[in-house]
Amino acid sequence: MNRKMIGKLLGFLLILESIFLFPPALISALDGERAALGAIFATMALSAVAGMLLELVCRNAEKSFYAREGFLIVALGWIVLSVVGALPFWLSGEIPRYVDALFEVISGFTTTGASILPNVEEMSRGLLFWRSFTHWLGGMGILVFLLAVVPLGKGGYSVYLLRAESPGPSVNKLVPKMRQTAAILYLIYIALTILCAGFLLMGGMPLFDSLCTAFGTAGTGGFGIKVDSMAGYSPYLQTVCTVFMALFGVNFSIYFLLLLGRVGQALVNEELGLYVGIMLSSIAIITADIFHLYGSIRAALHDAAFTVSSIMTTTGFSTADFNQWPQLSRSILVILMVVGACAGSTGGGIKCARLLLLGKSLKARIHQMLHPRSVNLIRVDGATISDETIQGVNTYMAAYCAIGVISFLILSANDLSMETNLTAVLACLNNIGPGLDLVGPTSNYAHFSDVSKIVLILDMLLGRLEIFPLLVMLSPRAWRRAA
Amino acid sequence: MNRKMIGKLLGFLLILESIFLFPPALISALDGERAALGAIFATMALSAVAGMLLELVCRNAEKSFYAREGFLIVALGWIVLSVVGALPFWLSGEIPRYVDALFEVISGFTTTGASILPNVEEMSRGLLFWRSFTHWLGGMGILVFLLAVVPLGKGGYSVYLLRAESPGPSVNKLVPKMRQTAAILYLIYIALTILCAGFLLMGGMPLFDSLCTAFGTAGTGGFGIKVDSMAGYSPYLQTVCTVFMALFGVNFSIYFLLLLGRVGQALVNEELGLYVGIMLSSIAIITADIFHLYGSIRAALHDAAFTVSSIMTTTGFSTADFNQWPQLSRSILVILMVVGACAGSTGGGIKCARLLLLGKSLKARIHQMLHPRSVNLIRVDGATISDETIQGVNTYMAAYCAIGVISFLILSANDLSMETNLTAVLACLNNIGPGLDLVGPTSNYAHFSDVSKIVLILDMLLGRLEIFPLLVMLSPRAWRRAA
Repeated sequence: MNRKMIGKLLGFLLILESIFLFPPALISALDGERAALGAIFATMALSAVAGMLLELVCRNAEKSFYAREGFLIVALGWIVLSVVGALPFWLSGEIPRYVDALFEVISGFTTTGASILPNVEEMSRGLLFWRSFTHWLGGMGILVFLLAVVPLGKGGYSVYLLRAESPGPSVNKLVPKMRQTAAILYLIYIALTILCAGFLLMGGMPLFDSLCTAFGTAGTGGFGIKVDSMAGYSPYLQTVCTVFMALFGVNFSIYFLLLLGRVGQALVNEELGLYVGIMLSSIAIITADIFHLYGSIRAALHDAAFTVSSIMTTTGFSTADFNQWPQLSRSILVILMVVGACAGSTGGGIKCARLLLLGKSLKARIHQMLHPRSVNLIRVDGATISDETIQGVNTYMAAYCAIGVISFLILSANDLSMETNLTAVLACLNNIGPGLDLVGPTSNYAHFSDVSKIVLILDMLLGRLEIFPLLVMLSPRAWRRAA
Repeated sequence: MNRKMIGKLLGFLLILESIFLFPPALISALDGERAALGAIFATMALSAVAGMLLELVCRNAEKSFYAREGFLIVALGWIVLSVVGALPFWLSGEIPRYVDALFEVISGFTTTGASILPNVEEMSRGLLFWRSFTHWLGGMGILVFLLAVVPLGKGGYSVYLLRAESPGPSVNKLVPKMRQTAAILYLIYIALTILCAGFLLMGGMPLFDSLCTAFGTAGTGGFGIKVDSMAGYSPYLQTVCTVFMALFGVNFSIYFLLLLGRVGQALVNEELGLYVGIMLSSIAIITADIFHLYGSIRAALHDAAFTVSSIMTTTGFSTADFNQWPQLSRSILVILMVVGACAGSTGGGIKCARLLLLGKSLKARIHQMLHPRSVNLIRVDGATISDETIQGVNTYMAAYCAIGVISFLILSANDLSMETNLTAVLACLNNIGPGLDLVGPTSNYAHFSDVSKIVLILDMLLGRLEIFPLLVMLSPRAWRRAA
């Protein structure tokens, strides 16, 4: 195991984080928020110094870098960034307990959007900006960013980093070089984010709100900067979010195909078809189910579309208290929490790509039972899927279920309702944010004990990093020097 | 597809059913229950005549018999037996609506034990006996019985029948001949049932109650003959049930090993270890969790052990209203519903054997990630497990989840609580019986709409037959004449 290389990359990440803290510092300075500014500066200094020290100590690292190193750096990187990123909230006193600050910032980086704040509007604007900015950074991935901007020299880094941090059953190489792939992904991400913020500005949303909302939308995060999330904004602004949440839940390789003019290929993508199909049918059923609460199809459709787009992409913004909706709608939302968005998007959940593969292997299996001597290859978008990939999906599902069950059991010790415990786990593990009952859209996660909060913190990380980097990190074997 | 052979076997099954209806007829006759007796006689006659006609029409069937035929006969056989078996309840007027009678009898055959009866003590003794007897018949399997007692002549029947009807990821051949395997299984089953009834009789339980309770215990069914299930019986009788429920949840090949004197081999069985481990740790945690409700460890332990044994083996008897227990205990029970008993037992659920395989493949996968060039075979009890078996488990899990989700969504249209809908689906799909909230142990399934009842009926069948026979039956390809 190449410890020095891991140290070196961690150093880079810490230096990057101190740079990322500059915009919130600027806002706090402009608004004269002293406590926040001091806390942010202290964190920037700590982060930069620690980063440079790590660089110095690990400067003569060898080049050898494999899957193991990729998993370890992703797991450690996310933990270190979060531990440091929580400091401004805690040092400023705006979140008095460190475990709460950690919950909040991990909820940010993992694009979950679950909050322990009873009144978010009391927070300083600098820290509010940092809180939303973490969504944007975590959405596309921090190591993918590092890969895109820092010249790391030759070596196998790129593929292992991208594979360990990107969501979905397999990684799409857009272009032969992984570094270029990372850069293209970030350019598309930045362009779409600017577009989203622009549409929000045009609707009369203040610049600060537009940026924070665009970050939350782009990263499919969902931290609101208002107590009522998006409910107080105009229908136009809500609709902009509905559309952009759905767009950020799409596999970014689709946008790359569109940029190359390969529209036909983009439109027949099977995962995209499943994603759009599930989304539209959910909106239709929920609209019919909540119609009697609204009295107008238009109003019901508006809130149904916003909520489905928000939950399925695992964003978590809300315009309505869907906890009060009829059971059918609530059940659909719980299922959508688990389904999630597309692979290679900023959204979480199991991902449509995995469901597609599970469905196809089920079909192949039944065919095999009827015709034992037939050969049943599984194809997606015309390409044959390897047994390795299918097996990977199955193992992922088993690990996902096991983690969900264990978390649910630990949370149950709080004696809150089963619905609260179940949806809290699902909302964190799938990086959504709000669940139902006591963790519904009008509520927050302050009710939980510290043990439960730590479990939910782990669930958020496990969900965003798709389990294996953290499992590998916890395996003693991974740390042995020999390969 | 060998339609005539399927018809011939269906004919056998119908004749068997008319014979099985003899004991309940006798009881109704002795007790002077006229309506019940008439209904049972009519059903016996219908069943016998239909069976003999089918035999006659299909007497010159070819011998060719493969996996497809095995699945089809199991699916069709269970449906036909249930459709006919529901008639006595309906014709006698004791269950006025046919869909309810069908629900009740399928709940019986599948050893679920979910009831639509608000007051079971109002039912005639003949039909009460038939209701419990269906548990016993369904527990070990009706086609396994047919295989054990009817000489079907040579051909591949036995292996395909046993495979299609027996629960678990693979079938243990106890002896080289499948027919003998079936006979040995039934002999062990009968011996254990008699033992159970004997212990109940010794505790002063009346003969009728002892037989019905032994049937419900042996089949891990759970139909009680009292409104309060087992709560009114003495602690001794409850303890007999605790022990025997746990025994019937064990893979029957363990008993065969014990009979052969291979005690060592039986005791190191990995699935047995997992089963006992989960059971004992659940009992320990629940005892601690409910202690404050009882005030005495002994009383808490008594009810915790009974409930865990009942739920994990998917029996469903109750001595306490576990719906009122704290959340941790309730959550553990929900997890146990899904876990279920051992493969090759009369219990339902996912089965410990599958969980064992899932856990081992997860471990192998993590090892593979760290050491990509290593070979990771999965072994259980020293034997290497084929990729085919692992793949089968994965597909089973995917199908299981899909069925659970779809059923949950359809039930949600009733607007009962999420906990009611979720646990009703789990209780039926895993063949347990009682769930939580409105389907808790003091309640019943009468609340549900007919559509929901039909969904739950399908879930019970899918759970007992482990999904694939019914899926194959619904595939149009399976019915084509050519192989």
